[in-house]
This record gives sequence, C-alpha cells and structure tokens, in this order.
Amino acid sequence: MAEGFDAVDVIRTKRDGGTLSDGQIDWVIDAYTRGVVADEQMSALAMAILLRGMTRAEIARWTAAMIATGERMSFAQLGKPTADKHSTGGVGDKITLPLAPLVAAFGVAVPQLSGRGLGHTGGTLDKLESIAGWRASLSNEEMMAQLADVGAVICAAGSGLAPADKKLYALRDVTGTVESIPLIASSIMSKKIAEGTGALVLDVKVGSGAFMKTQTDAAELAQTMVALGTDAGVKTVALLTDMSTPLGLTAGNALEVAESVEVLAGGGPADVVELTVALAREMLQAAGVDEDPAPALVDGRAMDVWRRMIAAQGGSPDAPLPVARESHVVTAPSSGTLTRLDALAVGVAAWRLGAGRARKEDVVQAGAGVVIHAKPGDPVTSGQPLLTLYTDEPDRFARALEALDGSFDISADSAFTPPPLILERYA
Amino acid sequence: MAEGFDAVDVIRTKRDGGTLSDGQIDWVIDAYTRGVVADEQMSALAMAILLRGMTRAEIARWTAAMIATGERMSFAQLGKPTADKHSTGGVGDKITLPLAPLVAAFGVAVPQLSGRGLGHTGGTLDKLESIAGWRASLSNEEMMAQLADVGAVICAAGSGLAPADKKLYALRDVTGTVESIPLIASSIMSKKIAEGTGALVLDVKVGSGAFMKTQTDAAELAQTMVALGTDAGVKTVALLTDMSTPLGLTAGNALEVAESVEVLAGGGPADVVELTVALAREMLQAAGVDEDPAPALVDGRAMDVWRRMIAAQGGSPDAPLPVARESHVVTAPSSGTLTRLDALAVGVAAWRLGAGRARKEDVVQAGAGVVIHAKPGDPVTSGQPLLTLYTDEPDRFARALEALDGSFDISADSAFTPPPLILERYA
Repeated sequence: MAEGFDAVDVIRTKRDGGTLSDGQIDWVIDAYTRGVVADEQMSALAMAILLRGMTRAEIARWTAAMIATGERMSFAQLGKPTADKHSTGGVGDKITLPLAPLVAAFGVAVPQLSGRGLGHTGGTLDKLESIAGWRASLSNEEMMAQLADVGAVICAAGSGLAPADKKLYALRDVTGTVESIPLIASSIMSKKIAEGTGALVLDVKVGSGAFMKTQTDAAELAQTMVALGTDAGVKTVALLTDMSTPLGLTAGNALEVAESVEVLAGGGPADVVELTVALAREMLQAAGVDEDPAPALVDGRAMDVWRRMIAAQGGSPDAPLPVARESHVVTAPSSGTLTRLDALAVGVAAWRLGAGRARKEDVVQAGAGVVIHAKPGDPVTSGQPLLTLYTDEPDRFARALEALDGSFDISADSAFTPPPLILERYA
Repeated sequence: MAEGFDAVDVIRTKRDGGTLSDGQIDWVIDAYTRGVVADEQMSALAMAILLRGMTRAEIARWTAAMIATGERMSFAQLGKPTADKHSTGGVGDKITLPLAPLVAAFGVAVPQLSGRGLGHTGGTLDKLESIAGWRASLSNEEMMAQLADVGAVICAAGSGLAPADKKLYALRDVTGTVESIPLIASSIMSKKIAEGTGALVLDVKVGSGAFMKTQTDAAELAQTMVALGTDAGVKTVALLTDMSTPLGLTAGNALEVAESVEVLAGGGPADVVELTVALAREMLQAAGVDEDPAPALVDGRAMDVWRRMIAAQGGSPDAPLPVARESHVVTAPSSGTLTRLDALAVGVAAWRLGAGRARKEDVVQAGAGVVIHAKPGDPVTSGQPLLTLYTDEPDRFARALEALDGSFDISADSAFTPPPLILERYA
C-alpha cells in the first residue's frame, strides 16, 4: 500500500470541503486498519465526512478500500445463482426469516450473513437464537455445504470480510458519527460485495423507527447503494419501505420467530406477507428466476426449507419457543380508528423490556417484547387491548410504558387510509 | 462534577448545530481530563465544534471548565500590578524578549509564561535557550521571587494550569482540529486567566505567516479573547498586527536574541521597536501606569532589567551567542522596489534550516535561521544580498531554498508603500 500520506492532511482536505484522492482514501483505510492512523484521527475524519459529505466517486473508492482490507468470498462453485437481502433495520422486521427459505425454495441460494441488534432495532441472529439449539456461527465450509444442500443459510458474518468496516463501525458507534449516508452505504456494501453474492435486494426503511427519518435521505441512501453494487458487478435493487409503524404484530425475539412461522404456514399479518413476497420476487428476478413466489408460502415449500435450514444449524424447529414470565396490557383510552402507532416508541419499549441491548455485551431476553393488537387503519373500542408487553423482569414495565407515552392516536373520523408499505423502487 | 451526561449525546448536539448546555460542557471537559471521555470522542467533538462553531456563551463556559481542571495562580501578594502579553505566533516574533524587561522597568510585574515552537513559528523559550546557562523551568516560588526582585520573568508554563487544555491541544494537533477560533481562543485564555494576571495585551497576527490568514478571522479571534478576558475580570486589550512579512530582520533562535538585545540597546529594526513600544504602552495603561515607555529602550533602563532577568535564570547576558557553521546568500535577481517578502516562506525556510521542530521531541539549532537584508518598501539592486540562510547542516539548504521559491516580488515601480504594522485595536 502506498505510503507518503499524512493523516492530518487527509482530515484537513475533507474538513475544508475538498474531495479525497484515491491515494488518500486507499492509504487512510489501510493505515487505520493497521493501527497507523489512530482512532482519534479516524473519528475526526468521520465527523468531517458526516458534515461535509462525499462524492459518489469517493464513496465507491472508500468501499473498495474497505473490501481490500479483508478476504473475498465466492459462491461460484455452488453452480446455482445466489441472492442476498439487506434491510437497514426497523421495528418488528423479521422479514429475513420467512424470506430466505422462500427464495431458496426456487433453487436460488441465499447466503444471509446477519448481525445482532443494538438499540431499538432487533437483530436477526438474536431472534433465531430463541430457537433451542440453533447456532449462529458457521465455518465457511459449513456455510457452503448448507447452501449446496438446503439452499439457505442465516449466520453470523465472519470477521474476515472488510475488517476495516468492523473497526470503523465500532468507532462510529461511540463518536456520534453513525448517521452519515456515505459511511452507512459503504459499510453495508463493503460487506455485501466482499461476500460475493450475485444479486442483492436492499430494503431501505424510512420513518420514525428507521435510521432514515425522511424519504429524501432514504432515497439518497438507496440510490447510493444501488450504484455501489451495480458498479461492483452485483445485480442490485432497492425498495424504500415504510417504517413509521412496526412491521407485523410483534416486536421481540421469540415473538417474531413465532410470527414468521405463521407466515411460512400460509398465514400471518398482511404487511409481513406483502413485503416478504415483494422482496422474494425481486431476489428471484435479480437471480434470473421469473416465478411468483407467493404460492410457496401457502403450499409448504418455503416451510420445508425453513425446517431444514433451522435443523442444519442445530435448531429444533418443533421445540416450543420461550415465553416471558410477566405481561402487561395497554388498552385503548377511546373508541375510533387507530391512525398512528409509532415504530420508534414500540421499538424502544421492546428494547427496554429486554428484547434488545444497550451495549454489545448485554444479554437479550428471548421472550421479551410487544404484541400489537391493532394497526393503523383498524377500528378500536375503548378499553380493548392495544398492546401486550412481555418481560421476565416486571420492574422493566415502567420504563417501557414511558416510551409508549404518546405513541398512538385514535381518531373519531373513520376515513383514514394508512400509507402504502412499499414506497419506491430503485434499480 | 455532575454525572448523567453521555459523550455521544454531547457530540450529536454540536454535530447537529445545537448549543451545548453548561452542564454538558462542564461534564465533557472534566470527563475528558479524567479519561472517561475517550480521545476519539473528544476529537469528533472538536471537529464538530470546528465546523459548527460555538456561541460566545459556550466559549466562555468551555474556557471556565478548562480552568476548573487545574490550579489558579495569584500575584496578589506581590503588591504591584501585573501585566502579561500573548502573541498568536508569527515569523520573527521576538517581541516578548525586549517587551517584558521594558514594561518591568516601570514597576509593573510581567509574568510571561511561554511555550516552545512547533512548525514555522518560533518559540520564545527556544530563543532564550540559545543563551548559555539560561533555564526555562522555574518553580512557582522561584517565579514569585524573581517577579518581586527583578520584575520580569519569561519561563515555561507549569503543567498545573488548565491540564484539560494541555491534553486537548495535543489531540487537536494530530486530528486536524487546530484551526477553530472558539478552540484557539479558549485554549489561550484558559491559561492566561488561570495564571492570574491583572492585565493582558494580545498581539493577534494576521497574514501569511499567522494562523489567521484574513483580517475578518483575526478580528473575530481578538474580540472573542477580549470578551473572555474582560468577563473573567482581566483588563484585556488586543492589537491586530500584520504578519504578511517577518517581524524585524531575523528569524531563528540566537539571531532573534541578538536582534532583541539591539532593540534594548536603543537600536534595532523600526518595526520591532514600533511594536514593542505599542504593546508596552498598552500593558502599562492596562496596569494603570500612564507613561511613555519609549525612552526606557534608549536610556538603558530596559537593558538593565533584561540583564538581571537573564542572570536570575542562570543565563550569561554577556556570553557570545551561538553562530551557525554554514551560510548561503540569496541575491536579488533584478533591481527595483521589494514589494513582498512572504512571512510563511521565510518561517518555513528557518524551520527547515533547523530553527524549528516538526515534532515535539525534535531538538532545535540555536544558530540556524534567516537574516533579512531588505524589507518590503526597500529599494534593491540586482545581485545584492536579500537573505542569508544559516544552519549547521548544509544539506538543509536545498529544502529551505525550495520554501523560498516565489517568496518575494521586486517591482520596477518605486511608488510602493508597505501596509501599516498595527491594523486595529480592540478593548
């Protein structure tokens, strides 16, 4: 890697609104990964990037430089197309669980490298770990074997992919530099490109429960990521989807697994089914398969892959899921139409009930979370249950209820139509 | 100190353009000094402050919080007024050397806590250390005794004053966050207020050789510091002075001591005499002494204090000063009027000749530097010496000459008037 650059010069270039050269980017990412550029220098640079922005060319180079710090995987030996999906994170977003087996049921391999939750958004691995015996960590060989045999795998990302991103993400988390579209886009795409998938569908969330609060920001993030993927030879599509209210009727680990199994059994909430099918159709199309995935949720094909996928990672698909010891019901204070149920408030409540973690080392409760009895657009009657809160530790109810204060609106006017779930598509 | 704050919240507040609360500022400065807020968090905050700015009230609180991390000195026991001077740093700026004894000759104590040079601006302590035997480090008791007896002291600042600033300054130096007016103003003023001087005169430099390149920025820095000092009960005045060309005819440690002794002997370059007298008059007035200091440079009163001040710190005022082993002359390529001699270029040349340091641990050469034979406004003849470069290591000439490339203009038009030295006054 080229030497001859100076960290302070790189920082000052971006601080003063300039464009980083390819050489500066390659050097600073490599030097940071090797510890030559110090954490306090990278955090100052990250803040300058957050406030000054980066051009598309800078973001592409930054992403490539992060990929270059680690290994690259390849699924070429599988002999079948691969498709992956990434969600930017939301409340009640269990879509990966039914989606991966659904797509695999059509002969497309789904290598779903996932993460754990931090803050109010849940993590896919945390959810699956509520299944007795299931393990998240697989060797590369185990993953390849499962993709060849079952067709779908959801497991922890190895530390070999884009180690620069792993180090930078941990730094951004403690330095107030998470909310930068260039840094978010390059973080996501460096791992997905290094992973070697042939097709990638992005679910970019917008609304109170998402990182992107406005459709403008979400669209910029989506378009940035589509361009990065496309330029790297990955067939990439993004859907902008609503996250002003939770997805489905549950937020919490075991609660969301149970809801996902309902969807795989042909039932489940309409919004979860709609988004699962829409994303599956995009993944199949991007992988060159022109079929309607919806019937496979009803006829048991997706459920069959799910059971084999869980079992292949040591899980018991028929074992009863953990249930929290304590519950508390929130009732409707008046009658009318539910016009708002805030995603962030429900996410924070589930987190405070024990479903999520504040620090990486925290342990999550499998049974904790929130069950939703009415969604925006539904009629409600005064005194009926709106939400049921679950936790093993009843002293958590007070702070969860605080988070829910002012989280919903009931209107006497029944002429309310909730916004569409899928807002936009970028390819 | 109040707890209950979170570093990421503080960073995000400033990042998003908000105003930090008194509690946030008190907490983050104290927690950083104690190591609870990490370097990478403070550097992100410093970058956010650099790009977003701070209100006058935030700067005042930030300064007070830095003062509160250390000890405060008091000169009340001296029984005479005190006055201090601070320069924001320039090329050839040896003014402290004649100024401190000149003011002390009028019965005003001058406790001049100084620093070492870094980069192209020289450090007062580096200059005085070219005098055989002179030592920069004094205990508080030694300093008080010298102020009572001699009336003037120039010594190293103890580490007990505003330790938060010491730590923050070192961090800013490596993270591209030096050039922030709020951070520069609070850094300077926290030490000066903690030092306990009754009056303070600020020499704020503007031009190519200064940190502040424009008069607008320099004026903002000056007014910010005057407000901080005044609010803290220190009689504070600022002069804005030109630093587009070096001060006097020398840049380098022993070279500048020799020039200062010329000024104390009633001679020396006109600009050095003008600024020394102007600053002395401001310091005396601020300390309540209404006298003209100029005669004391001519009649030996200031020289007498200088000799006692140097001797009190172990120095030999009559010892010959070190002279560099090698020299190189730069001549005028044409005849006419010298219309420009760039301060930054001369400063960088002196630095590269060995007069300054690139890293804190570097050793400086006492004899290295530049002697100037013509100043802007002077007539020059083709082939006459313009500059003489001095160093002990002749392989340094090449890079010094590179720095001087394009550093001066000679015009055939003789109707050139150099800009005034003293541009503005703020009180």
